[in-house]
Amino acid sequence: MINKVILLVFDGLGDRPIPAFGGKTPLEAAYTPNLDAIAAASQCGLMHTLVRGVRPGSDVAHLAIFGYDRERYYTGRGPIEAAGLGIPMQEGDIALRGNFATVDGAWNIIDRRAGRIRDVSEFAAALDGMEIDGVRFIVKPGTAHRAGVILRGNGLSPAVSDSDPHEAGQPVWEVKALDQTSEAVRTAAVLNKFNKRAYEILSALPENKKRQEAGKLPANMLLLRGAGVYPSMPKFNDKYGLKACCIAGGGLYKGVGAFLGMDVLQVQGATALPDTDIGAKLDAALKALFTYDFVFVHIKAADSLAEDGDFMGKRVFIEKADRDMARLRALPDNVLLIVTADHSTSCALKAHTANPVPVIFCNPDVRLDDVEAFGERAAAKGGLGIIEGKDIMPEVLNLMGRLPLTGA
Amino acid sequence: MINKVILLVFDGLGDRPIPAFGGKTPLEAAYTPNLDAIAAASQCGLMHTLVRGVRPGSDVAHLAIFGYDRERYYTGRGPIEAAGLGIPMQEGDIALRGNFATVDGAWNIIDRRAGRIRDVSEFAAALDGMEIDGVRFIVKPGTAHRAGVILRGNGLSPAVSDSDPHEAGQPVWEVKALDQTSEAVRTAAVLNKFNKRAYEILSALPENKKRQEAGKLPANMLLLRGAGVYPSMPKFNDKYGLKACCIAGGGLYKGVGAFLGMDVLQVQGATALPDTDIGAKLDAALKALFTYDFVFVHIKAADSLAEDGDFMGKRVFIEKADRDMARLRALPDNVLLIVTADHSTSCALKAHTANPVPVIFCNPDVRLDDVEAFGERAAAKGGLGIIEGKDIMPEVLNLMGRLPLTGA
Repeated sequence: MINKVILLVFDGLGDRPIPAFGGKTPLEAAYTPNLDAIAAASQCGLMHTLVRGVRPGSDVAHLAIFGYDRERYYTGRGPIEAAGLGIPMQEGDIALRGNFATVDGAWNIIDRRAGRIRDVSEFAAALDGMEIDGVRFIVKPGTAHRAGVILRGNGLSPAVSDSDPHEAGQPVWEVKALDQTSEAVRTAAVLNKFNKRAYEILSALPENKKRQEAGKLPANMLLLRGAGVYPSMPKFNDKYGLKACCIAGGGLYKGVGAFLGMDVLQVQGATALPDTDIGAKLDAALKALFTYDFVFVHIKAADSLAEDGDFMGKRVFIEKADRDMARLRALPDNVLLIVTADHSTSCALKAHTANPVPVIFCNPDVRLDDVEAFGERAAAKGGLGIIEGKDIMPEVLNLMGRLPLTGA
Repeated sequence: MINKVILLVFDGLGDRPIPAFGGKTPLEAAYTPNLDAIAAASQCGLMHTLVRGVRPGSDVAHLAIFGYDRERYYTGRGPIEAAGLGIPMQEGDIALRGNFATVDGAWNIIDRRAGRIRDVSEFAAALDGMEIDGVRFIVKPGTAHRAGVILRGNGLSPAVSDSDPHEAGQPVWEVKALDQTSEAVRTAAVLNKFNKRAYEILSALPENKKRQEAGKLPANMLLLRGAGVYPSMPKFNDKYGLKACCIAGGGLYKGVGAFLGMDVLQVQGATALPDTDIGAKLDAALKALFTYDFVFVHIKAADSLAEDGDFMGKRVFIEKADRDMARLRALPDNVLLIVTADHSTSCALKAHTANPVPVIFCNPDVRLDDVEAFGERAAAKGGLGIIEGKDIMPEVLNLMGRLPLTGA
């Protein structure tokens, strides 16, 4: 009887045929004896994470896999990133992603990362707790130049534009309401006041004087983007009755886990880069099975390499991951292992695509099919058929014998 | 990188097993080395043009393939046929198909085609520009006895019945409102007045006197059918950012192209009959790739032959088309070739059926599957799975790298 689940998501794993690989995809071209053996012991299929013909971003793709509909729960990346920084949020909070940046006196951007500043704790602290028109600002530091910003108050809306123009040389954008509601108009006005106050406070900060004396660019502006509202939402544990944890290197993916209420486990060497210690992450996942019912493991670099067009690197990274996956070949029967991806990333296009991704359910309780390799075209012949991201959790509950009965 | 598309639609190509072909369909029984080679270089699947279990008409089937939902954009065949006659339409125009016919003094139909009249230009001109109760009538000649009729004015509705009883011996039907709206009631009243005026004008026309003196039937009535409204609708070029053209022999299919704003190319020898010059159409398609991003080619006769129950003729026509398709076997890598059908037409039933049709996407960038023949059952084993007509354009945009990202 299955009572434990490991869900392994390889970011951007799917791809298109690569001429240099004789028309195989990087996954198909990779030597993956462990993944192939796991696929051979699995029921396999293809998955459109959202729906066929829709090109998924990583954030909404993950939400879909966990059974959270983007229309209902997703308004922007802000709340997910803020959750990843460990900021406790309340329903109705507006969250944005922030970059500490350097601007000139006319608010033209000199550097979007304030000279690649390494720690913005002091700068975030200087802005944290600000109140404007009854709205409280919570500002917490992220890694390097990054920060999370929460607006807490009545009558707010996530329908506001970014102040971050996303490139140097541009002026800081005025925040605008994206719809006609008084909430959006008010939120935009409050954010524009925040920008002004933030610039004044940061410009006067002793830390910035020190940076300038040391020949460094000052962190005198906080660029904001990705406004979203923290929704009324059941936590993963409550929605499924499964105690869940998240093991990831990348901030966004820790954010997804935290956003859904999973415990985010820290693993030494999990970098979200090609050098990441996948073995350490999988060891942590196996250990977590003693404490948790559901272990989400995210592996990032196949996506980043594909976005760089590095198909050789993508293949090599998949092979590296496969070596570390030997330890998943002898799981006890009570553990369901799912291996999939959040979307395809084409090395040729250097972008996410809508091509479906392989998905495999490995456990003696599944209806084993004939698929003996882990790949896009192998999985297409699997017994699972073509599914969507939203089908994953119902299938998990089904295999666990935890689905409610419809009818009688 | 794909930046050009040829979409080849064989009307009514799919079918059911024919006992005389040992249980093969006409397509499966046909010798089609070129289509098979193209399928072998394609990702294949089956398509329900509308949805499973719905039997498609050619008009709505084509709209679905081009991503235009029939619920939203289709009220009747009139606007498509009128577009095919080159009549410029405006949002809200009501369009109907017309037949110049012969009626007696009591409006009983003697001949629905006015003695197979060959040119109705003078007759259409005599009615064109008529005004009734603030509604302007635009009447343009079609091929032979056919015409297109537009009603332009305020407060009109397409919810009106035909005046054409669809068979000789019957009286001309009174046009009735099909719903309770004042617009439908008004439109029916205006059309009934039009019928009266049209009969008076046509009866008095010198051309009809000449016809009668020559022993021919007069074209003294215009039978109307297929009322539809020209909808508020994005043109294909704007919807997808692809400059498109249409190559077809049949009026309806030229109409679909024109309705969607495609340039309709005239090809010598394209007759929509079994004798049509498919080679000329495909040559025109290849030439059009220099000017257009998206080339829609329609091939009609497999459908007509099946509607006649002529399964041998259908097979022979498919083989003829295959010979001409040799020129599509060496397209450059930037051209995506899609071959499919708008619906199945059963030679046994002599009617459209809801059986799905093969669909193949041929390009080195697709995930090639194992299918090596172009047929209903071969395509069922393809990597694309079972799709719907509405999935075609998103997949085209996906392969072209032109899909917007959902989420971030």
